[in-house]
Amino acid sequence: MRHIPEEPEAQGAPPRVPRQRSTGAVPTSADVARRAGVSRATVSYVLNNATAVRISEPTRRRVREAARELGYVPHAAARSLRAGQSRMVLMPAPGAPVGALYHRFFHDLQWALSRLDYTVVQYGSAGLTGDEAALAWAELRPVAVVAPGIHELGPAGVAVLKRSGARAVITVGPCPVEGAHALLTDHGEVGRCAAEHLLARGRRRLGVVMPEQPALAVYARARLAGVRAAAARVGAEVTELPLAYEETAAARLAADWPERGVDGVFAYSDEYAMLLMAALQDRGIRVPADTAVVGVDDLMLGRLLRPRLTTVRMDLPSAQELAELVDRTVRHPGTSPTVRDLLGVTLVARESS
Amino acid sequence: MRHIPEEPEAQGAPPRVPRQRSTGAVPTSADVARRAGVSRATVSYVLNNATAVRISEPTRRRVREAARELGYVPHAAARSLRAGQSRMVLMPAPGAPVGALYHRFFHDLQWALSRLDYTVVQYGSAGLTGDEAALAWAELRPVAVVAPGIHELGPAGVAVLKRSGARAVITVGPCPVEGAHALLTDHGEVGRCAAEHLLARGRRRLGVVMPEQPALAVYARARLAGVRAAAARVGAEVTELPLAYEETAAARLAADWPERGVDGVFAYSDEYAMLLMAALQDRGIRVPADTAVVGVDDLMLGRLLRPRLTTVRMDLPSAQELAELVDRTVRHPGTSPTVRDLLGVTLVARESS
Repeated sequence: MRHIPEEPEAQGAPPRVPRQRSTGAVPTSADVARRAGVSRATVSYVLNNATAVRISEPTRRRVREAARELGYVPHAAARSLRAGQSRMVLMPAPGAPVGALYHRFFHDLQWALSRLDYTVVQYGSAGLTGDEAALAWAELRPVAVVAPGIHELGPAGVAVLKRSGARAVITVGPCPVEGAHALLTDHGEVGRCAAEHLLARGRRRLGVVMPEQPALAVYARARLAGVRAAAARVGAEVTELPLAYEETAAARLAADWPERGVDGVFAYSDEYAMLLMAALQDRGIRVPADTAVVGVDDLMLGRLLRPRLTTVRMDLPSAQELAELVDRTVRHPGTSPTVRDLLGVTLVARESS
Repeated sequence: MRHIPEEPEAQGAPPRVPRQRSTGAVPTSADVARRAGVSRATVSYVLNNATAVRISEPTRRRVREAARELGYVPHAAARSLRAGQSRMVLMPAPGAPVGALYHRFFHDLQWALSRLDYTVVQYGSAGLTGDEAALAWAELRPVAVVAPGIHELGPAGVAVLKRSGARAVITVGPCPVEGAHALLTDHGEVGRCAAEHLLARGRRRLGVVMPEQPALAVYARARLAGVRAAAARVGAEVTELPLAYEETAAARLAADWPERGVDGVFAYSDEYAMLLMAALQDRGIRVPADTAVVGVDDLMLGRLLRPRLTTVRMDLPSAQELAELVDRTVRHPGTSPTVRDLLGVTLVARESS
């Protein structure tokens, strides 16, 4: 795969260099400069497409050829040390499997940021949480951090990141974090939307599935609060239904169903709804005749259930908008943190309610 | 969140520095040295826990306090430039939503590598593929690259990475890549395992779902080859069933079902199996009486279907083993690339077959 350099023809040609470089040595811009017979500054101007400096086309060509022949790759870290600022946007890797919704959002955000000349890396903070994780991120000197979820980052972590050169720290989650821009995703709205639908269908004894996975607790509580608020307005009952994501747990819950007298369930997500519906149907409990079921996420699997699952679709913040907020904040880091509510919700009514 | 420095008490105390540093300036080890009244080398020895150098406990304490007070965070890039080698392991971010299986694998790998003192970042190569992506990765100067899947990396990309200082390049996927260590995941085994099960149950007209998502084509073809090989041994028929991941496409396929005369389906994945089963059942085709169905992945949803879904469980390479391979290769980069087959398969028989 190595290019074999040809003999230079032009006058003022570069000094000859050995054809085979010693293995293991990484070509630097100094190597490119030597081979092309120019200064390192010229190499830098040419390879960064700097237009402010007049450099002849033959010289530009010679530099590009030398870079290609040597297999020279710019060093992001060295460049960021010289510039005093990186172009790296760091996102913590999600702590749980991501659904198609989040994946799409991340892909779009990456794409939008790459068009603004940022490099996006996801940092796997295995075993680190909160401000310890922020310290580890800070070592990479990202110019911006976009942190979805709430477990990763507190005010101390935000301060560490800013001291380490991060010009933009943006959280995406249910609560703002001191010192950071916050894009709020108010999950109370998700519960409210589902509950209002069940109430409109005449259900008055609502169950709310509370997943036992700790990572979901903060969302579950916010959604429960939304259900409670909607139920309180018409005097409906609300029962919490703790549930592990396991068949046996769902079977136990279904066995107690008649004595609970729940006639409408907000099932936290489409996946929990599927788990619960299978258990209810195994016990002969009819959906929706005996109990209506509503999920969240509008996953494909909800359309494949029988009855088809009613669900709440969340409209995440636009990746383009978020990328522009990152860029604006990097360029004007002095602006004080903003808090914006960006989660929209839509009820998708199907057969299960 | 900034620590307010206290008045130094000890003799030989550091020179006073302003309480409030100018905003935006990132504290460096030189700042720490100045505040602690020691040399930069001493700061480096203390903060890197170098034991070869004798430094008194009070001095160590002074350096650590100065670092904490200033909010000093080591700079991974600067450190790697000094050391001539980073501790960064780069993994391309998956190009499609990841399932629980991959997520678990990634989490375990991160964890195993962090215990070996590596930092794992996932690189979002939005819009870049193959060797272009490798060039972008190379700019971060990772010491190792672990690339799952096959679309990202070819021999030229491997060469670029190695020239840029990557000491270990490891692919995980169905085919080896020249110049890289390869952990093979032979998806032919997946198809073979499913087909042998269907054949053992007396099915002789096998259908194979071929997902129309381009990212899945390489796996689908490998699995199909496995089905064909198993079927050929007993003279069974094999029919390819192209299918988009959409309800309407599945309904069309189910409408043609009787004329196809398929009595056993290898459905590519549990998710495609769920899509197909819903469509078959809507047309009154009985599973497994008329057609047996086998998925892949052993997802929770397969256990929630009625009939419960038979599936092929894949046992991915052990994260611990992979982390050790990374570390071994980084320490001995001269070893020639190895190719190892690491995918185990197990049939999980349930009610759908």
